[in-house]
Amino acid sequence: MFLRNAWYCAGWDEDVGIGATDLVCRRIAGQSILLYRTGEGQVVAMEDRCPHRSAPLSLGRKEGDAVRCMYHGMLFGADGECLAVPGMDKVPAGASVRTFPVVERDNWIWVWLGDAAQADETLICEAIGPSDPKWVLKTNQLRIDTDYREEIANLADLSHVSWVHGMTFGGSDDWGFIKPRHELQPRGIETKYCVRGVPAPTFARHLFPADARFDINVHVRLSVPCNFILSFAVHEAEEGATGRGMSNGKLLLDTFSSQAVTPRDEGSVDYYFSWGTSKETWFPGIVDLMHRTNMHAFLEDKRILEGQRERLLQYPGAPQVDIVHDAGPVRMLWVLDKLLAEEADSVGVAA
Amino acid sequence: MFLRNAWYCAGWDEDVGIGATDLVCRRIAGQSILLYRTGEGQVVAMEDRCPHRSAPLSLGRKEGDAVRCMYHGMLFGADGECLAVPGMDKVPAGASVRTFPVVERDNWIWVWLGDAAQADETLICEAIGPSDPKWVLKTNQLRIDTDYREEIANLADLSHVSWVHGMTFGGSDDWGFIKPRHELQPRGIETKYCVRGVPAPTFARHLFPADARFDINVHVRLSVPCNFILSFAVHEAEEGATGRGMSNGKLLLDTFSSQAVTPRDEGSVDYYFSWGTSKETWFPGIVDLMHRTNMHAFLEDKRILEGQRERLLQYPGAPQVDIVHDAGPVRMLWVLDKLLAEEADSVGVAA
Amino acid sequence: MFLRNAWYCAGWDEDVGIGATDLVCRRIAGQSILLYRTGEGQVVAMEDRCPHRSAPLSLGRKEGDAVRCMYHGMLFGADGECLAVPGMDKVPAGASVRTFPVVERDNWIWVWLGDAAQADETLICEAIGPSDPKWVLKTNQLRIDTDYREEIANLADLSHVSWVHGMTFGGSDDWGFIKPRHELQPRGIETKYCVRGVPAPTFARHLFPADARFDINVHVRLSVPCNFILSFAVHEAEEGATGRGMSNGKLLLDTFSSQAVTPRDEGSVDYYFSWGTSKETWFPGIVDLMHRTNMHAFLEDKRILEGQRERLLQYPGAPQVDIVHDAGPVRMLWVLDKLLAEEADSVGVAA
Repeated sequence: MFLRNAWYCAGWDEDVGIGATDLVCRRIAGQSILLYRTGEGQVVAMEDRCPHRSAPLSLGRKEGDAVRCMYHGMLFGADGECLAVPGMDKVPAGASVRTFPVVERDNWIWVWLGDAAQADETLICEAIGPSDPKWVLKTNQLRIDTDYREEIANLADLSHVSWVHGMTFGGSDDWGFIKPRHELQPRGIETKYCVRGVPAPTFARHLFPADARFDINVHVRLSVPCNFILSFAVHEAEEGATGRGMSNGKLLLDTFSSQAVTPRDEGSVDYYFSWGTSKETWFPGIVDLMHRTNMHAFLEDKRILEGQRERLLQYPGAPQVDIVHDAGPVRMLWVLDKLLAEEADSVGVAA
Repeated sequence: MFLRNAWYCAGWDEDVGIGATDLVCRRIAGQSILLYRTGEGQVVAMEDRCPHRSAPLSLGRKEGDAVRCMYHGMLFGADGECLAVPGMDKVPAGASVRTFPVVERDNWIWVWLGDAAQADETLICEAIGPSDPKWVLKTNQLRIDTDYREEIANLADLSHVSWVHGMTFGGSDDWGFIKPRHELQPRGIETKYCVRGVPAPTFARHLFPADARFDINVHVRLSVPCNFILSFAVHEAEEGATGRGMSNGKLLLDTFSSQAVTPRDEGSVDYYFSWGTSKETWFPGIVDLMHRTNMHAFLEDKRILEGQRERLLQYPGAPQVDIVHDAGPVRMLWVLDKLLAEEADSVGVAA
Repeated sequence: MFLRNAWYCAGWDEDVGIGATDLVCRRIAGQSILLYRTGEGQVVAMEDRCPHRSAPLSLGRKEGDAVRCMYHGMLFGADGECLAVPGMDKVPAGASVRTFPVVERDNWIWVWLGDAAQADETLICEAIGPSDPKWVLKTNQLRIDTDYREEIANLADLSHVSWVHGMTFGGSDDWGFIKPRHELQPRGIETKYCVRGVPAPTFARHLFPADARFDINVHVRLSVPCNFILSFAVHEAEEGATGRGMSNGKLLLDTFSSQAVTPRDEGSVDYYFSWGTSKETWFPGIVDLMHRTNMHAFLEDKRILEGQRERLLQYPGAPQVDIVHDAGPVRMLWVLDKLLAEEADSVGVAA
């Protein structure tokens, strides 16, 4: 089940360009979507299926701002309307392709799958893109064969950092004991907390003395379908500080990560992500190190999520025990299910 | 849905021989068929399944004109009757394998899947085989994962040559504007037309001056299930000629292509094809060039047909817009559906 | 359909060890089972699924005699009870993993899938393991994509040795004509017979004069689900001996093979097997030769069984003709079906 009235990330802006990337197909929430750019650079999103005999338009040819289906030569404008059928004086009725609202923001391409009249740009999550002059961010992408609901559960509970990411982001059990408060938002949750007095994470341990300890201020915003915006600031550990407040220790490294998980179908997602530091706290080599670590860490997630999916399919309906760390996942999935129910209701009213 | 009372091409005659090819399994219209040759060279076709415990006979051993199942040693004659069961004095009742009528013609092996009493050899399509002394033809084969009905639609409308085959057979938009007349035949359609004043196709362009123009006389016979017999003669362009008549320009290259598309199952076909020139118009290198081009072109078809199939499966029941070029496909599929309906009726009467 | 109250072979004892093999997942009769050893060497078998969110425990971390799920850090003891949830003072109700009775015997690991109270060790088949000081045995394993019922049929009728194994165990038609008596046992069948006056099998033919002839005393015990214990003794051929009795010729080579076929799911099995000679009749090189031959022979079975499965799936419900050699398979499958029916009845009574 997918939200229709939602912005779905269709990838990084540089994924759609010229030459080999002039016509790109993305599978988004059960739809095959063609992406390309007009001469003015505007990204067009339309159903990647010719209305004649269903050939993929992404196997076609871009002609100016139009796309030609390369099975029988039908030409479609950026608005999806058929402009010409070779050998016919008039275009047949119904020869148009559905298009979708598109917005580029923060170097991401966003596609609205539902009612175009409701495509509210303010619903796009706030992020920082790699082109932001105040930040040094590197991007990547990965396919994971899991239900996006399991990705939500993964991202809404960072206790797994201690266990899944022991060789990368983790390195101590501390993340496994944090019980943050997740504030409900209209289309997601927001979470702030400090992980206090921890050693450097495994991937950066060689940069510091063995007994160095840090406070990490974490600020997470998670919004539907599964966009994860993470500020992660490393401070010198405050002596003797405890409690839920954020650290006031000296800021050592201010990092930011934008992560968008786009469901392809029920059992597969595309994951677009960045990580890096503010220009102010940057030092040579750090973002390369973070970039490589990020991919390694998300391959750790992929392994556990795909293993989990195998078991979920093998044991359908098996009972699941809840634990304290499910608070975030439960809230975020509650928001998603509420919005899904509202969409189902509005369809019922319309019908 | 497959016609039962039809000749299906099981491949080129040289595909069934000795040594590694002495026992060949083909999947034809949902049946697994064993092919082998008797000592006299006659091809035998029988169900590739031992009646004992369903082991494939094609994993067996040819013994004279018989085949032994190499699971438990049962021996079957060329008529499908069990000749011996090791350890048993009498062959058990029912121990026989269904055989199918076979005809070799034009270097193709044809198998009749339906009622043997109705196996009328005159229903085999007329073709020219690579052993014909008046022709120089080369053969090949390819698997495409598509419904054979989509192959019919592909072959019954050559307007796609301009779009799918721009790098091979095409090279101008002309094919996309031809609206030929398709004559109904009892088991197919026949189409004749001239593509006038066109440049050389892409694959042969280097052989001619840039401004050379040609008339191409096309004669196509398409018959069920999906046999495509193509005469394609290149003439010097007649000055000022128009209309539907065939060109009377000087004949430069007389070519012929036999193509048989045999459905394996609902979503996959085997494609057996040849192309070449008459001996009279042959010149050194031309048939090698055509042969290589043919495979490249059919890989272009494979790409678009398999892309189309992906979309058809993703959007079941989605509406399709018709265009002028569907005339051929519509007629040919009408013939196929009429014959399928007649078979269904005759089964109803028999029951 | 699988027996629940049965011992299933989960592999060779050395398959579960330390390092890369400290947490092993086996698919057994539709269950995903985690195997590991406690500090004292006892093998633990538990469902390979965390009761929290279904992550595979085999992707976890062994900690002493416990296993930690490496998704959210839950720790489970060897009895399957949750010992700790990071961040929680109390373990939530229901946080336990099902465990299964395990016995190691004859270098095999046996797991009981059904009611633990009925786990009767005397039901484990009698075998000889590779650590037996009187024998020189080598082990191996193989996956075959077939229904285990077809494996039963394969092993309960050795007439196939002549046909399937002509290049390995066979070498003459003699096996194809043996009609042994299969004695019913409570959970299987037992079969003894002599194959008289045969040449050396293909794999060993180079070791003997071309006209050497042998008597082979065969003693087979087959028990549910599909355990095949084979004594296979090669004697000098007795002059003029006939009939069903065992050979009294001079013992040349006393061989033994333990084979356990464990169904993974409906269409796939794991095959664990050994073969070798008694120390008394061993000579240099013979067990290496037998070991290599064994794998080659079982790849011959794999080819025919997987071909058979393809046909069984393509022709569901097609009739099958019975032959004399089905006596063993029919008896063994009758035993299996009787036990399956008894389990179904006992569930009915309990409900």
